[in-house]
Amino acid sequence: MVEWRRHLHRHPELSFKEVQTSSWIAERLEAWGLEVTRGVAGTGVIARLKGGRPGRTIALRADIDALPIQDEKTCEYASTVPGVMHACGHDGHTAQLLAVARYYTLHREETAGTRVFLFQPAEEVLPGGAVSMIAAGALEGVDAVYGVHLWSPFPYGIAASRPGPLMASPDEFEIEVAGRGGHAGLPHQAADALVAGAHLVTALQTIVARNVDPLDSAVVTVGQFSAGTARNVIAERCKLGGTVRTFTPEARKLVRERMEQVVRHVGAMHGTEVSFKFYEGYPPVVNDAAEAERFLRVAQSLLGAEDAYLCQPMMAGEDFSYYLRERPGCFFFVGAGREDGASAPHHHPRFDIDERAMLTAAKLLVAVADDSAEDELPAKG
Amino acid sequence: MVEWRRHLHRHPELSFKEVQTSSWIAERLEAWGLEVTRGVAGTGVIARLKGGRPGRTIALRADIDALPIQDEKTCEYASTVPGVMHACGHDGHTAQLLAVARYYTLHREETAGTRVFLFQPAEEVLPGGAVSMIAAGALEGVDAVYGVHLWSPFPYGIAASRPGPLMASPDEFEIEVAGRGGHAGLPHQAADALVAGAHLVTALQTIVARNVDPLDSAVVTVGQFSAGTARNVIAERCKLGGTVRTFTPEARKLVRERMEQVVRHVGAMHGTEVSFKFYEGYPPVVNDAAEAERFLRVAQSLLGAEDAYLCQPMMAGEDFSYYLRERPGCFFFVGAGREDGASAPHHHPRFDIDERAMLTAAKLLVAVADDSAEDELPAKG
Amino acid sequence: MVEWRRHLHRHPELSFKEVQTSSWIAERLEAWGLEVTRGVAGTGVIARLKGGRPGRTIALRADIDALPIQDEKTCEYASTVPGVMHACGHDGHTAQLLAVARYYTLHREETAGTRVFLFQPAEEVLPGGAVSMIAAGALEGVDAVYGVHLWSPFPYGIAASRPGPLMASPDEFEIEVAGRGGHAGLPHQAADALVAGAHLVTALQTIVARNVDPLDSAVVTVGQFSAGTARNVIAERCKLGGTVRTFTPEARKLVRERMEQVVRHVGAMHGTEVSFKFYEGYPPVVNDAAEAERFLRVAQSLLGAEDAYLCQPMMAGEDFSYYLRERPGCFFFVGAGREDGASAPHHHPRFDIDERAMLTAAKLLVAVADDSAEDELPAKG
Amino acid sequence: MVEWRRHLHRHPELSFKEVQTSSWIAERLEAWGLEVTRGVAGTGVIARLKGGRPGRTIALRADIDALPIQDEKTCEYASTVPGVMHACGHDGHTAQLLAVARYYTLHREETAGTRVFLFQPAEEVLPGGAVSMIAAGALEGVDAVYGVHLWSPFPYGIAASRPGPLMASPDEFEIEVAGRGGHAGLPHQAADALVAGAHLVTALQTIVARNVDPLDSAVVTVGQFSAGTARNVIAERCKLGGTVRTFTPEARKLVRERMEQVVRHVGAMHGTEVSFKFYEGYPPVVNDAAEAERFLRVAQSLLGAEDAYLCQPMMAGEDFSYYLRERPGCFFFVGAGREDGASAPHHHPRFDIDERAMLTAAKLLVAVADDSAEDELPAKG
Repeated sequence: MVEWRRHLHRHPELSFKEVQTSSWIAERLEAWGLEVTRGVAGTGVIARLKGGRPGRTIALRADIDALPIQDEKTCEYASTVPGVMHACGHDGHTAQLLAVARYYTLHREETAGTRVFLFQPAEEVLPGGAVSMIAAGALEGVDAVYGVHLWSPFPYGIAASRPGPLMASPDEFEIEVAGRGGHAGLPHQAADALVAGAHLVTALQTIVARNVDPLDSAVVTVGQFSAGTARNVIAERCKLGGTVRTFTPEARKLVRERMEQVVRHVGAMHGTEVSFKFYEGYPPVVNDAAEAERFLRVAQSLLGAEDAYLCQPMMAGEDFSYYLRERPGCFFFVGAGREDGASAPHHHPRFDIDERAMLTAAKLLVAVADDSAEDELPAKG
Repeated sequence: MVEWRRHLHRHPELSFKEVQTSSWIAERLEAWGLEVTRGVAGTGVIARLKGGRPGRTIALRADIDALPIQDEKTCEYASTVPGVMHACGHDGHTAQLLAVARYYTLHREETAGTRVFLFQPAEEVLPGGAVSMIAAGALEGVDAVYGVHLWSPFPYGIAASRPGPLMASPDEFEIEVAGRGGHAGLPHQAADALVAGAHLVTALQTIVARNVDPLDSAVVTVGQFSAGTARNVIAERCKLGGTVRTFTPEARKLVRERMEQVVRHVGAMHGTEVSFKFYEGYPPVVNDAAEAERFLRVAQSLLGAEDAYLCQPMMAGEDFSYYLRERPGCFFFVGAGREDGASAPHHHPRFDIDERAMLTAAKLLVAVADDSAEDELPAKG
Repeated sequence: MVEWRRHLHRHPELSFKEVQTSSWIAERLEAWGLEVTRGVAGTGVIARLKGGRPGRTIALRADIDALPIQDEKTCEYASTVPGVMHACGHDGHTAQLLAVARYYTLHREETAGTRVFLFQPAEEVLPGGAVSMIAAGALEGVDAVYGVHLWSPFPYGIAASRPGPLMASPDEFEIEVAGRGGHAGLPHQAADALVAGAHLVTALQTIVARNVDPLDSAVVTVGQFSAGTARNVIAERCKLGGTVRTFTPEARKLVRERMEQVVRHVGAMHGTEVSFKFYEGYPPVVNDAAEAERFLRVAQSLLGAEDAYLCQPMMAGEDFSYYLRERPGCFFFVGAGREDGASAPHHHPRFDIDERAMLTAAKLLVAVADDSAEDELPAKG
Repeated sequence: MVEWRRHLHRHPELSFKEVQTSSWIAERLEAWGLEVTRGVAGTGVIARLKGGRPGRTIALRADIDALPIQDEKTCEYASTVPGVMHACGHDGHTAQLLAVARYYTLHREETAGTRVFLFQPAEEVLPGGAVSMIAAGALEGVDAVYGVHLWSPFPYGIAASRPGPLMASPDEFEIEVAGRGGHAGLPHQAADALVAGAHLVTALQTIVARNVDPLDSAVVTVGQFSAGTARNVIAERCKLGGTVRTFTPEARKLVRERMEQVVRHVGAMHGTEVSFKFYEGYPPVVNDAAEAERFLRVAQSLLGAEDAYLCQPMMAGEDFSYYLRERPGCFFFVGAGREDGASAPHHHPRFDIDERAMLTAAKLLVAVADDSAEDELPAKG
């Protein structure tokens, strides 16, 4: 598993361009005798294995894409592709799901039900690969779906999840204010886009502070502000970019509507034209309550009660949410951080995982899938 | 005069680098028999001419530098130097002062007193060439000093000035806010430099609105605001740049002190570090009241009462202010705009002048100088 | 019970002044033969009843004070005291706890353990009566403590609570900005306290928006802003008042510290003096997890699973929190709203309850107390 | 003159209610044999005197009303009317114009032209008495008009005025924000009028800072801000009141339009309803250039060049502006401050004047009127 992961780490490919990765995965799965479909949703791969005993059909998913980040690690398995790097652990996800598939080929007879292995492209880039995978039939006949993220903020050895909202919906926005530039000494002849932009940022703070239910959660971050080309010229244009994080459709809708209102009126107030673009990110990852309970039960029996627990929701997003909108299931985290707590964060040029976590993740996937497969089969219509 | 100006227009040189320009000027002045000093304050040239009759010593000044702007004109005298252009009319200033010098060599006998011709480098770039010219003795023995700016916002045919403040002091500033970046979904772990910057811009508006005497004038323009590198990352740093325009030392000091206060406290309020740099520009150009009156009288008799008038102060700056701090004198504007009002503004890639204005300017310089030279000579110690 | 409640409703008394109320309660309790202590913490009453069987000592608490509100109801039991009214349901709380006490005197023999009835003054006014009751020994020998609030936003027939934070800590604050007044036309001679106050309000929004963990909850409400005496005079002073709601000590501390920082620096930024007073309200009401589970179990068996459920935390505060810091226990809500949803809110001049809710509340108190009394007795040291 | 002034000071009357004052003035004028019209514009008095020599018709104006201020002086001539006081010097204006009238009755023969004495009610209260006086024919046949204000910020002994704008137009405004109140802990259910009001104040600062020509003058002062009734209730309403000072119709219009725009959009941005009322004050007092020159010439010959000078414009308003829109003329200030600079400001409960200033003012009125009366008579059509 470590070897596989390091191979992928050396040869990362960007979202929707995982051509070599995809072939490499498919070759292995085919060699092991699984029923493999290549080219699902472009570069996705789906493999199926029917166990020797009756049971439900359980899908397990790994994402396979890398990020446009320059690897700054110096280890021998560092990325060989300039500016591209597995900086989020998807190489580990792929390797561990391959290991799970291999395991099942060796234990086919005692396996209950069917396993569907989803190797999904493009988790990192909107609109995400999950939508296309589902459109291509990835969940046909599937009764439940599980996924895992190796998570470096958690230490090696633990697993965690929660019922209900687990990860936020990470929407993005872009605002452009078009004023009227001019000589810095003659503000009355201009419409100062920079001042309008500053008022916008200030006004947007009231959305989380006053409009979102304090018992709900939301974040509105303006991450970028860019205006003006010279000190002595009044800025003609001002561009803002940012992200919205919410866990509920109500909060998401509210924030978006309030932003539209604020942007429109701050713009008009300063005599400027504004445009507001809102890019819907993935929906929030919402775990089925019963499935989250199953995961915790299984994980506690595998890792001990101490090391498998309920966690807080995360402000990051994941397109695993789309699978959970279609089928019951659970997404969970497996700790992959160094014990000294010094792991570089996800998406960092020196990000790395504790590779032992892949074994934990693989075992959990098998255990949860096997437990779930034994559930009563749905009645046939 | 037109030929000279076009020659200079084709061969512009940046501030403090006017080497060819300087030689070219000096050669002409020497050829006409003036007493010439080269290399004053680097690339400046000073020429003296003693008239045949007694009288005061009058200095006339032209600035000779060009701007780092790509000429977009297509005429045959367009700049031949990529990225450098006479986009403020200093070529005209130089040509017309040469013409004045030439005139005096032809009318030396009837000229009262002495004329000093100051060809000054680097008006466009702080700290400006005037300071160095004065340090090099440019005003030694000088009783009064006059200067002119060809001005395209005014139509050809007119001249204007005013007693007291005529042009603003154009100070500049740079503010840097250093916060603590972070994941866009975790604002509580960061110190958002962008939000601090927005509050800064908003708070700075109160200086002109509430702190400056409403009967005085001041402008605080934040012309640049730049923060953040990605939509989903909280901005670690925020940079602001801008300019302050004032006409009085009181307003100038007040604005600077209030800015320091606002910057320090907005920074501290948001838990960020701030740095504030204030670059003093030229002092305001303040005309001597009696000299402004002289100019208007002379100009009205030359151009008619309609075409020589009092104008409002300008928010632009000029290092002629340094001469006026040392000697009585007057700076004035000569209209050089196209009659249809369509002239591109100063510092614009398609800026040009109505070349006839140079003759107006030259005549006015001679008339004012001659009038001033006839004043009673100061009593000798 | 209804008669008792209406008697109290007609004769409300303000916090710490519940003299008649207190006597009236004590007389009844004494008449029924309970062991009564009058004058606890001023106007509080404690009654004890030892059951016929062994068991734990269980305290039940009611608050007895009214509010400085003019009753606008027209019913025959409307308040007879001008400007004072039981507008929060404490009359019902008192009546139902009396009914519970009466019940136990009639079922003394079969009762396990001891019951302590706490009639507490002054829940509505800081520092609250609970602190003094505890200081006076109200919890001596007590193993667990329970309390209830009749709650008009919930419909009659239901009961609800939750483990962990149930009600917020309602701190209050007062900010005063002292500037320098002056003629409205001469802002440069003044320090405008009103403008400083406006910037304060704007800056305070960033605390909830950017500094509080988005997964935690906090509210900062500026409820009052008062500045200036005339349109044409610059405001010398500005007073702000408001409240902070939090559920965790971390959020509470953070908000307070950030407020201090914002107030200090906004004040200094505008050249004004500021004072900041923070009045700590009650701590958050935090239910013991096991006790909340007990309550839900008991309530579901009494009311049915549909009508006893987990609720969201409330942003209001309660000094029952002090009892829960000393002993395990649970605070819960009993729905007392009219079925048509038209009940006036708590603290409203036309507030009223569905009086049937008192019976629900009394039964729940008895059931929870009896359940809790049967727990294993703590080992004697 | 001092006696008259003290009489009036003891018996002040509010604007448009100067009944006794008016009779008292008229009686004196009639006794001296002037042609008197009572009841002009309610409580105004006009008197005419035709001199013995030909000349122009010159109007001189005094305002006669007092202010709703409680006199805190302890001198024997302090106000005897509770809550009413001559706190702006109009008692002096009335006394000195009476003295001027008396003077002319004694020098009728040598007087050139006609004098019209305007005793105008209600200068202190919009819409002012001047409008009605003019409507009632006060300026019929008048060639020029002059007025004076005793001015305590200037020391006794001086006089000052300026050509062009001398006093501002003092418009007032009232803004009301109607949001939706609510529980302080539930901001998402409310529309916070207080936060909207704070953003309004902040946004209004940009009008003077960015929209008004920096070479023009304007002040926007929000003098009053009132919102909220309790710390723990979200403010339903927010009221702002303030004043705008400008000298030009352009600036006045611009500020009003920009305010409307800001108010409308800040209101809409926060989901609140706003109302904006703008009360036009007097127009700016704009002196005729030639008449201001006349005044300075006359005053310098009377007081010496040192003590009669050009002053800066004032941010206060005066309804003398209406006369100057109809006729050429000049309004000027006569210093009435105590020499130690300790005079209480105008409109202050301890305001008083140096009574000697009345003589200066009376002499200046006579001198200016006499000078003006000698101008060439307008040709008769």
